[in-house]
Amino acid sequence: MDRNASVGVFDSGIGGLTVAREIMRQMPGESIVYFGDTARVPYGSKSQDTVLRYSRQIIRFLMTQKVKAIVIACNTASAYALETVEKEFDIPIIGVIRAGARTAVKATRNKKVGVIGTEGTIKSGIYTEVMNQMRPGLEVTGKPCPLFVPLVEEGLLHDSVTDEIASRYLSELKSRFVDTLVLGCTHYPLIRSTLRRLMGEDVVLVNPAYETAIELKSLLEEKGLVCDIERTPEEKYHFYVSDLAEKFTAFATSILPSEVRETKKINIEEY
Amino acid sequence: MDRNASVGVFDSGIGGLTVAREIMRQMPGESIVYFGDTARVPYGSKSQDTVLRYSRQIIRFLMTQKVKAIVIACNTASAYALETVEKEFDIPIIGVIRAGARTAVKATRNKKVGVIGTEGTIKSGIYTEVMNQMRPGLEVTGKPCPLFVPLVEEGLLHDSVTDEIASRYLSELKSRFVDTLVLGCTHYPLIRSTLRRLMGEDVVLVNPAYETAIELKSLLEEKGLVCDIERTPEEKYHFYVSDLAEKFTAFATSILPSEVRETKKINIEEY
Repeated sequence: MDRNASVGVFDSGIGGLTVAREIMRQMPGESIVYFGDTARVPYGSKSQDTVLRYSRQIIRFLMTQKVKAIVIACNTASAYALETVEKEFDIPIIGVIRAGARTAVKATRNKKVGVIGTEGTIKSGIYTEVMNQMRPGLEVTGKPCPLFVPLVEEGLLHDSVTDEIASRYLSELKSRFVDTLVLGCTHYPLIRSTLRRLMGEDVVLVNPAYETAIELKSLLEEKGLVCDIERTPEEKYHFYVSDLAEKFTAFATSILPSEVRETKKINIEEY
Repeated sequence: MDRNASVGVFDSGIGGLTVAREIMRQMPGESIVYFGDTARVPYGSKSQDTVLRYSRQIIRFLMTQKVKAIVIACNTASAYALETVEKEFDIPIIGVIRAGARTAVKATRNKKVGVIGTEGTIKSGIYTEVMNQMRPGLEVTGKPCPLFVPLVEEGLLHDSVTDEIASRYLSELKSRFVDTLVLGCTHYPLIRSTLRRLMGEDVVLVNPAYETAIELKSLLEEKGLVCDIERTPEEKYHFYVSDLAEKFTAFATSILPSEVRETKKINIEEY
């Protein structure tokens, strides 16, 4: 494996850019090939079969880009596909769930943790399973929040409708007095201020992106895969999507530290 | 072409069942093969390229089922793909847009028509174009309503949040005094009562499903393709999806006149 190769990062769409951004911050020397499956977004309401098939296609594509490691920056794909694909492919692959779970397990004082995510992520029960392995006896409550993704995609980040929907979704978690809440979908950090207000100042909000970047860093160090040459942002970062490349470029430029000049559209079904 | 073959009907997901239901009502003798692209839903926010590619795959699949005609029961696919695929494939294909436009053109008295639909359907401008060909001088106002599909899919058919979102979407159309409103997405008839209340009793709500079934009937008669044998519902109706077959079966049973016993899942990317 070439230590100066790129890291592959993928998501069902734009949400995983919050993970890519964290990798850029923590490991400014690393190059990234990002793929967003904008033609088949969202993953959160699809079956495990389908999400697994899509994840395999994307990993095959990323391997044609000669990446040295892959980050599944999508909670649903991490929940449904990681365990299978890490056995099938001969490349280090990490997801966002173990990282998020580890932070939550350390953060909780009253042992009551809430997890919000897509239907797929919550139905899989994986956050509960992983956290209970890490620290038995935790009370983990999962709550699917299927309308958050469309509300965020529509830009209603600070809006009375988002407040109303969030207040319905969070009421059960509040009534259980969780002191830690995992934002188990990469879109959710974008409505962090609404979630913060509704949950109150005392609840720790966990964004798995931060800890995922730390996990990637350890992995690269452990395997002797830390990049040791310097490159410009244009050389380092490459973006691919399955649809709507221009819209993606605009969004990526708005949230990443450097301008995204180009996003390439590929036909992911061919991989 | 075999007059006793089935009619193929497709949609991005479940919405097109409202069109299938209308065909069952108006032509109880006809058999139907329905395909819902539940793995790649929604189409409304995707590019024309992608929607066209998906539509071609589905038409190729339906042709393996030996259908005698195809109804594109999805406004976005009708807007983006019909004109191209009707030239490419040697089978009669109709969409839902001409039928909806024709009803609206007949219904309006003050020549002000509103159209609500997905981003794709409205951006294509096709309703405006078709209605202006049918009756020049109409004032047609299109309004994309991207949150209606997720709200309907979440079952919030009678809900204060849906009211609030609908009231924002419809305000411009109300201020233009449209007297006719085309429900340009197959999901929207499911929130008809909300739309009716907000628009008022005097505005005609046009559901293209009804007129599409009439158009199909004329087409089959014209081409000598009306079925002349009797079959049971189990023999007549067949359902295919690209994901989540059981969820589809439950929904289809809830809105169709006879129970749906089985939905088959296929890999549409292979076509």
